[in-house]
Amino acid sequence: MTKETYPIVHHVFFWLKNPASTADRDKLVEGVKTLSKIETVHSLRVGIVAGTEKRDVVDNSWGVSELIFFKDLAGQATYQTHPVHLAFVKNYSHLWEKVIVYDATEA
Amino acid sequence: MTKETYPIVHHVFFWLKNPASTADRDKLVEGVKTLSKIETVHSLRVGIVAGTEKRDVVDNSWGVSELIFFKDLAGQATYQTHPVHLAFVKNYSHLWEKVIVYDATEA
Repeated sequence: MTKETYPIVHHVFFWLKNPASTADRDKLVEGVKTLSKIETVHSLRVGIVAGTEKRDVVDNSWGVSELIFFKDLAGQATYQTHPVHLAFVKNYSHLWEKVIVYDATEA
Repeated sequence: MTKETYPIVHHVFFWLKNPASTADRDKLVEGVKTLSKIETVHSLRVGIVAGTEKRDVVDNSWGVSELIFFKDLAGQATYQTHPVHLAFVKNYSHLWEKVIVYDATEA
């Protein structure tokens, strides 16, 4: 099992309080990137909305995305309570007004 | 740039018409897996809901997830209109009642 095939996929989407502020967006991107310091976090990818075609099914109202692969559910649980994650929430949560998390496991 | 660092990340979540049917879920998983035949699709990951802790921010109401990395926006556009993708929609769309797509680009 390589890191790229770790089975737990943690998708997170953040909606900014100030969606028009690229400064706020960039600040949150910086914050999400700190999560890579957590030892159970693999292949962290931080995203912003891509310029794909507008379609009814495409939600482009969010601001920042986070994608993490975990080796197992224990790794995800470690992440949730890790001091680096708690510091991220403390220091950056004022920037977002909504967050949605989708946790998937390999089918 | 390796396939694992391709910058366009296409996250799709499907809500099943019959959420209690594991047969329908498995059928849709099978359908999503056919998308790996499209030449611009890299590192396709197909998921089902993971057993992470219940939290207000976690949406676990969906049935099947799809995660694809594209090298560029052109690769995503090729995928949308590719005969394999159109066949997937034709043959499997009766299984879902809602789909949400999030298209991200590396921040």
